Amino acid sequence: MKEEAPLRKKVLDHGYVELAEWWGSDEGIVEAARMSTQKGFQGWGVEETCARCGGSGTNEPENGPGSLCKVCRGAKVAVNKPGDEKLLKYLWANKHMTPFEMAGAQFEVQAPIFVFREWHRHRTQSYNEMSARYAPLPDLNYMPTVQRLLLGGGHLTKQAGSAAGAEFLDEEGAEIFQENLAAQYRHAQRRYEESLQAGVPKELARLVLPVGRYSRMRAQATLRNWAQFLTLRDDPHAQWEIRQYAGAVREMLAEKFPRTMALFMEGRDG
Amino acid sequence: MKEEAPLRKKVLDHGYVELAEWWGSDEGIVEAARMSTQKGFQGWGVEETCARCGGSGTNEPENGPGSLCKVCRGAKVAVNKPGDEKLLKYLWANKHMTPFEMAGAQFEVQAPIFVFREWHRHRTQSYNEMSARYAPLPDLNYMPTVQRLLLGGGHLTKQAGSAAGAEFLDEEGAEIFQENLAAQYRHAQRRYEESLQAGVPKELARLVLPVGRYSRMRAQATLRNWAQFLTLRDDPHAQWEIRQYAGAVREMLAEKFPRTMALFMEGRDG
Amino acid sequence: MKEEAPLRKKVLDHGYVELAEWWGSDEGIVEAARMSTQKGFQGWGVEETCARCGGSGTNEPENGPGSLCKVCRGAKVAVNKPGDEKLLKYLWANKHMTPFEMAGAQFEVQAPIFVFREWHRHRTQSYNEMSARYAPLPDLNYMPTVQRLLLGGGHLTKQAGSAAGAEFLDEEGAEIFQENLAAQYRHAQRRYEESLQAGVPKELARLVLPVGRYSRMRAQATLRNWAQFLTLRDDPHAQWEIRQYAGAVREMLAEKFPRTMALFMEGRDG
Amino acid sequence: MKEEAPLRKKVLDHGYVELAEWWGSDEGIVEAARMSTQKGFQGWGVEETCARCGGSGTNEPENGPGSLCKVCRGAKVAVNKPGDEKLLKYLWANKHMTPFEMAGAQFEVQAPIFVFREWHRHRTQSYNEMSARYAPLPDLNYMPTVQRLLLGGGHLTKQAGSAAGAEFLDEEGAEIFQENLAAQYRHAQRRYEESLQAGVPKELARLVLPVGRYSRMRAQATLRNWAQFLTLRDDPHAQWEIRQYAGAVREMLAEKFPRTMALFMEGRDG
Repeated sequence: MKEEAPLRKKVLDHGYVELAEWWGSDEGIVEAARMSTQKGFQGWGVEETCARCGGSGTNEPENGPGSLCKVCRGAKVAVNKPGDEKLLKYLWANKHMTPFEMAGAQFEVQAPIFVFREWHRHRTQSYNEMSARYAPLPDLNYMPTVQRLLLGGGHLTKQAGSAAGAEFLDEEGAEIFQENLAAQYRHAQRRYEESLQAGVPKELARLVLPVGRYSRMRAQATLRNWAQFLTLRDDPHAQWEIRQYAGAVREMLAEKFPRTMALFMEGRDG
Repeated sequence: MKEEAPLRKKVLDHGYVELAEWWGSDEGIVEAARMSTQKGFQGWGVEETCARCGGSGTNEPENGPGSLCKVCRGAKVAVNKPGDEKLLKYLWANKHMTPFEMAGAQFEVQAPIFVFREWHRHRTQSYNEMSARYAPLPDLNYMPTVQRLLLGGGHLTKQAGSAAGAEFLDEEGAEIFQENLAAQYRHAQRRYEESLQAGVPKELARLVLPVGRYSRMRAQATLRNWAQFLTLRDDPHAQWEIRQYAGAVREMLAEKFPRTMALFMEGRDG
Repeated sequence: MKEEAPLRKKVLDHGYVELAEWWGSDEGIVEAARMSTQKGFQGWGVEETCARCGGSGTNEPENGPGSLCKVCRGAKVAVNKPGDEKLLKYLWANKHMTPFEMAGAQFEVQAPIFVFREWHRHRTQSYNEMSARYAPLPDLNYMPTVQRLLLGGGHLTKQAGSAAGAEFLDEEGAEIFQENLAAQYRHAQRRYEESLQAGVPKELARLVLPVGRYSRMRAQATLRNWAQFLTLRDDPHAQWEIRQYAGAVREMLAEKFPRTMALFMEGRDG
Repeated sequence: MKEEAPLRKKVLDHGYVELAEWWGSDEGIVEAARMSTQKGFQGWGVEETCARCGGSGTNEPENGPGSLCKVCRGAKVAVNKPGDEKLLKYLWANKHMTPFEMAGAQFEVQAPIFVFREWHRHRTQSYNEMSARYAPLPDLNYMPTVQRLLLGGGHLTKQAGSAAGAEFLDEEGAEIFQENLAAQYRHAQRRYEESLQAGVPKELARLVLPVGRYSRMRAQATLRNWAQFLTLRDDPHAQWEIRQYAGAVREMLAEKFPRTMALFMEGRDG
């Protein structure tokens, strides 16, 4: 399965999230949970019976409710016989989280330094990041759109918003900010290149680089810890920028662990 | 003991390390290790006998080898009766590290962002850091000295040194770098203040801030994990700047856990 | 403060919990949280003014609402000036848990092996335990009372209760169980001693020891992780025996961190 | 690849280790490490050229030095062009361990409780274990062989050996131990069954079960943490029983991560 085209999603102006590796499955989580009672994975539920020939089949995506009978092509009738999704839901709802450590994923992420500064507080993840000590960082910098600037941070928490006593930011103000930021990025890059050329060690030449600069990393965690990451970062209290990354992570996890991620969404939104 | 003046050490031009909290002791580590054999702390060794009156005393710092007898002021003779420092050494040498988790320390640290970026990779520490999302960062920026710049990074590892094809950095080049860096810091600060004034949300106004900017945090770990931190950061392969912080951490730990830290130094240097 | 008589509580028939070490405070937690906004601890709230003389005082336990004025013994009037308990509550309610890592405690615990087996799943704690590999375990075994036996486990979860098809346990049945268990403990101990005497290595002689046998350990965690432990173990779903230990842990933490633990109790019971 | 027959190995008399899941690869580890310098995996080294036809091939196990040319069956000549095994070795030797967190494995393990008690001290692993609270444990108990008993523990450390003042264990003594142990296991099982039948809650009926009883679990960790496990448990200082499990884990990891595990063996034995 890992030979498929990798899942990859563009985020912000120069960033991306790519699923580099993943392991385990919704079924494997149930199997691990069933260690305690010595039973394995029993199957997902909703038995279906054919109204014509009486044949039955489990509710698999390719054979779901509303599909025709495989044997005689008659219409199927769903019989409510809940399966292991009931256990999966019970585990999630009652915070029996260890089975969700038995699956996981690794992403490659390109994001601005200030996003990585927030991300790296998640100490249950493993990281390998590009280092400006060892190689000059590519000249990629984050430029927020006018729309994003006007979105502000202030509608969410007073703290993350405008400074006390500040003016009201309008479209023109946002455009001026963009111009100034672009100029500052250019100057920083020029200084950086000059310093490197002059023989300043890479580890010091980098001092001028702004936190809007892009870096790149691999980040790996178990599904349990990705869920914890999403709880904090795929959330209206999180800064808009890291939320975009968290959203991309969530979507890719939902491709590989559809039932677990459905429970996550339910628990969050419901 | 915690009512004493706090241990604090200036580091770099605007940074510091301060011991905010600590717990446990060399004795407590032995006590924890002795859980396995059901004995407690037995005392540190080296019995000393007075050559004149025959009185004895344990080798405590204030009453060490070479000191006079407390009773008759006669010269003392050390009698080699090893105590629990033998166990402490055995634990350390054989990497039985769990007893060293039974002590720890919390530091307040002011350091440039690029130093924090390295520090935060130590995922066994607990952190609380100043946030530019919530309050403007004070205008403090790291300026390396000419001496530091000429020290380079290249004597240690090829990677951390000058970029390929760069000129040789001399004193004049270092001074030019300082001037350019200072200018860049000033410009970044001006842009930052203008943006804040214009109503740009704090969380975005910060994009121009360079990684040479100072931030502040509390960092806490067990003694075992501080030792691991020092192994990597109080080491010639580490960048010079974080080594200065690691050195300050080591000195303060040595005040509170003298026997354990002596083993650390021995293991490292011997 | 650490020179006081240690907090210690008997648990079950031969067990105990003793507070061996602790660090940090409710105030220190607020101080750590305030790193983000660059303010320190501001003080606990509720100013009180004397209705007669106008004198005021902070709402400390010994001087709380309803108490008389210290100066003139007049009735006091509470003036609603909320202090840092508001921030502490906000942190807890919004799951900003890192400041609660800046305090912690170490306990010495004597408990049956089956209790330790559950306890050690809490992988954020540090442990040092007695080892039957290195020293014979003392002959202490857990004997549940009749009352406890009749309490069952079945009122809580079907799984933890009686086996399928079992008889109904009455007082006589419980007493028979006690007698059989006592006999089995005696036999195991006799075999253990014989094997040790016969020269069987300690690490193998222990094979007969039942999981009802007592062992002893030191366990240390941050306040955040103790709260997580209590959430799972000081809970009706937990086995009755480990709940007794969790209750003792909770009480001792409440002595040292009264405001944080009050929030814990509130969040749990409310 | 995960559809192959699972790797499984019998251990002790009733135990086993089975590879339930694994992810990542030697190549992926290099790729993660190369994040720092922005290069990916470059290929393993040692170019070989055919002395007859000039064709070349990388030094893969099935096509190694000394093998014949695939094209013309001529002898090959190794050309020393080191590849990424040099980086992998550098990472390992210099303890740059984070890339080794980017791979991992999950095992299903059946082992006696006293082995699990040692295993669970490795707090970086994720566990899901059978629970005697929820289902009666199957009647499987560990019986050491005479050969194992005579091996003792005393040749390694004084502590793990015979008790002070014990007799010398000979073959007859070992056989007597076996008989007594078997009898004790039988009695414990009878009591267990009687108690369950009498309606004693499962969570209390288990008190008589000896630590020689088998249990079963899933255990998952990153490759870095498995290496740490092996360092302590696949080692002469570890108890013989857990070493057998560690050896099985090592062999299965070597199948999936041959280059990394070769470095582990080298570092350990060299």
